[in-house]
Formats: sequence, structure tokens, C-alpha cells
Amino acid sequence: MLRTFSGGQSETDLAVAGRVTERQPLRPEDLRALVEGYLADLALTPELHGQAESVRYAIASPGKRVRPVICLAVAEACGAEPETALPAGAALELVHCFSLVHDDLPALDDDEERRGQPSTWKQYGEAVGILAGDALVAEAFRLALSYPTPHVGRELAQATLGMIGGQYLDITDSAPDEATLHKLKTGCLFAASVGLALWAAEVPEREQGPWRAFGHELGLLFQIVDDILDGDGYVVTHGEEGARRLADQAASRARERLADVPADTSVLEHIVDGLATRTS
Amino acid sequence: MLRTFSGGQSETDLAVAGRVTERQPLRPEDLRALVEGYLADLALTPELHGQAESVRYAIASPGKRVRPVICLAVAEACGAEPETALPAGAALELVHCFSLVHDDLPALDDDEERRGQPSTWKQYGEAVGILAGDALVAEAFRLALSYPTPHVGRELAQATLGMIGGQYLDITDSAPDEATLHKLKTGCLFAASVGLALWAAEVPEREQGPWRAFGHELGLLFQIVDDILDGDGYVVTHGEEGARRLADQAASRARERLADVPADTSVLEHIVDGLATRTS
Repeated sequence: MLRTFSGGQSETDLAVAGRVTERQPLRPEDLRALVEGYLADLALTPELHGQAESVRYAIASPGKRVRPVICLAVAEACGAEPETALPAGAALELVHCFSLVHDDLPALDDDEERRGQPSTWKQYGEAVGILAGDALVAEAFRLALSYPTPHVGRELAQATLGMIGGQYLDITDSAPDEATLHKLKTGCLFAASVGLALWAAEVPEREQGPWRAFGHELGLLFQIVDDILDGDGYVVTHGEEGARRLADQAASRARERLADVPADTSVLEHIVDGLATRTS
Repeated sequence: MLRTFSGGQSETDLAVAGRVTERQPLRPEDLRALVEGYLADLALTPELHGQAESVRYAIASPGKRVRPVICLAVAEACGAEPETALPAGAALELVHCFSLVHDDLPALDDDEERRGQPSTWKQYGEAVGILAGDALVAEAFRLALSYPTPHVGRELAQATLGMIGGQYLDITDSAPDEATLHKLKTGCLFAASVGLALWAAEVPEREQGPWRAFGHELGLLFQIVDDILDGDGYVVTHGEEGARRLADQAASRARERLADVPADTSVLEHIVDGLATRTS
């Protein structure tokens, strides 16, 4: 499907030009490779001095990068180059890492391991672990603020606050109900994965509605499947079959929301399928 | 110096109108009252749920509010209404509170008391104490991002990262020298007290130079006097007389920098005098 150019472009030039002009969307695994590359090369603030090592350690912990991949895919579906959303996607991943680093602390979940490796506090000590989480949040805002308007940063702040509120409800066992807890603890940052992409891609606010409805279903889907894999949460309240049914319904609604969007959402449909059927 | 109005304004109307039109700058104690009122009425993000109580507790801890007062005074000297700088000033105070809340944790300084009251973690437990610091940072960025451009938030992110780097150098005893340590641990947020005000007051970047030089001296002055009051840091390395001399020199340089600024800086001169001679 490459156009014919009369100039002396190489085949790569033509392929890149073809992708730009014809918008063949990147596959989830390509988007993930973009994210991994960006995170690996991320220049941290030099003033962090030695603290940077523990921050890098936390970022390098082998995660699925699902939030930044969604962010890039939404940005691309909205007509932007996926690379445009890299700082926003990385900011989401850093806030996610921050939440894991602080959750793992002895005073919270007391987890010595994370993804098969020593958790950040276990590796660097509790004090540096606390500061690592702090630095991850601040670096996340630095990235979110690299856009020309404050919208990306504003939505990240709201999502981060919601996530912290959810964590409070969880550790104090004071959530009014399961839905509220999950909406805050997981849902906020998933919704923001879509929301930040919309701002990064400069989608006007009046056109964001269907996208935001999609983001909401995505967070719910992720959480229910998480509970199915861990055998807790929705599985305890609804049984395994009940939880599976809820997950399938959330996936269906997510696909319906995508159908409301006037764009090529094939990659996002693929991501929904992946989230619904994942086994880890 | 009130103008005569022909209308039926009350004396208060005339006083307010007079202040606005003739720019009689507010005194530091008036600015502090503005800050205290703003912080007391601050609407926290509802999604924080019960976590908000510990955040309010940390904010209400009786501090000097020196950073927001400087921020408001600089904004007013730059021709803006001081109220314009309230979200920026409050953001600085929240980042300062965050640093105290996390510094007090058992894994760091292990302080059970702060300003004559139980420290936040001592009052609410360690887990909620950690989350309180996290929420303070995120609320600070929410406030900094209420401005139309990302500049206030960007400078806050840089200052916060510098402060965290300084804290790391301090707890790991790895600072290359005392000046670097203090520039990061204290200086960054003082410099930002001036910097955020410049953005809030929409001072063009090319006119910010002398102001920023002033902010640098202010941070140094605050730190040296702090060490004199605590008998550590500069007192250990330079003796009490030597430290006093360094403080006086920093105060002199701060006044000289103010003289370079084409504005009524009388309130800031007063603040410099107050920082140089403070006894608590």
C-alpha cells in the first residue's frame, strides 16, 4: 500500500512515509517496544544524584506496561503519532511504579518481592524506598508537564489522588463498597490512560465522551480479570463463574464504546481481547 | 493617599480601591493571614476519602508559611494581586509539608513530634503517614496546575526533585559538600518560592534574572540561620561567628539583588531582615 515517490527515498523512508500518510496503526507489541525504549532511555533529573539508581530499578521491574500501551494506542487512533503520547504514557507508568513501590513498604503490604525480584525497599532499604516512590511521582509530573498545556498534568494529578484515596480505603478497610474501591485503586489510572492520550493528541473536549466511557470499562475489565487470576475480590463476592461473566460483560461494553468512536480502533479492540483473556 | 470618588462607596471600598489602584503592598503578616485562610479553606480532592484528615492535620501543623509568604510578596512586587499567587504559594507549602511528613517517618528521622504535636505518622500510623505525604505532593501539583500555562507546575516538579535528591544525599551521607546538600534540600524550594511567583504574575522569562538571583540568596540565608538556631551544619564547619558572618553576607547580597529589580521591594526587604534576625 506504499505510495510511489518520484524522489530517491530508501525503502525505509518509503515505509515510514507510508505509515505516516496511510496510518497503518502499530500493533500492541510495537507500542510496547516504543514504551520500553523510552523508559530505558529516560533522562532522570540530575539533581536526584544517587537516588536515581533506585528509581531506575523500580522502573525496570518487568511489567506489562499496559497503561502506556493503551495511551499510545488511543493517541494513534485519534490521529496523532503514537510517539506524541510517550511522555504521557511514561508518566502513567511512573505513577503506577510509585504506587507499587510504596504499597510494598513494610508499613503497607510488607512485600519483599515484586515480579520475581527484591522489591525496591528490600533492595535499597526502607528510607531510600520511600524516597524512590516520591521521586517517581515528581518525575511523572515533570513528564506530564512537558506538553504545551497543563491538561495532561491536571488529569494525572486527579488520577493519582483518586488512586491514593483508593489505597487508603483498602488499607483501612473502610470502602463503602467494592466498586468504589476498585474504581479508585485501579480505575482512575486506567481512565487516565485514555484521558491523557486525548489531551496529548489534542482531541477537543466535546469529542472526548465516547473515549472516556471506553476508559471506564477498560479499568473495570482489568480489575475483574486481576481478581480472577488472584482468586480474590470479585471472585469472593461473585464466585469464579460470576466474575468471569462480569469480565465478559465489561469487555463487551468496552467494544461497544469503541464502536461509538469515529476512528480505526482495531488495535484497541485487540487490547480489549488481550485484557479479557490474559492469564498473568 | 486614597483617591476621592464621587460615588457612594464605603470607606472599605475606597480602601480596597486605593490599594488596587495605588499598590500599597500588603505587609508580611497580612500575606501570612491570606495564606492561612487559603490553606484552612482548601478543598481537597473528594476522592481522597478518609485520607484527607491526615492531610489536613499535616497542613494545619503550625508553621511559619515562609515560602508562600515570599511567593505572594514577589507576585505583588511584580504588579500582580497577591491573591493570584495563592495556589502557587499553597503548592509550595504542601510540598514542604510532604517533605516533613516523610522525613519524620521511622525509616528516616524517626521523629514522633513536629512543632509540639505528634508527627503525622505518630498520629495516624505509619501507613497513613506515608500516604499523607503522597497525597500532599499530588494536591500540590493539582494546585500548581490550576494556572493557564504549565510553567508553575514545571518549576514545582524540578524543585521537588531537587529536594528529594538533597534528602537522599543527607540520609546516605553522600553529599559532595555542604553547599550542594543545602542548595538541594532547602534552596530548591526557596528558589521556587520566587520562581513560581514570577510565573503566576506572568513576568516574562527575560526579566526574571535578578529575581532568581534573589531567590538563591534567600534559600542560603534561611539555611545558615537555621543551622545557627540548631547549632549544626554551618556552625559546625564555620563556628558560630563564622556562620553569623555568612548569614549577614547572604542577607546583604539578597538586598543587593532586590536593588536590581525595578519594583517596590520594601516588603521583601522586610522579609530578608526577618529571616536574618529570626530566633525560631
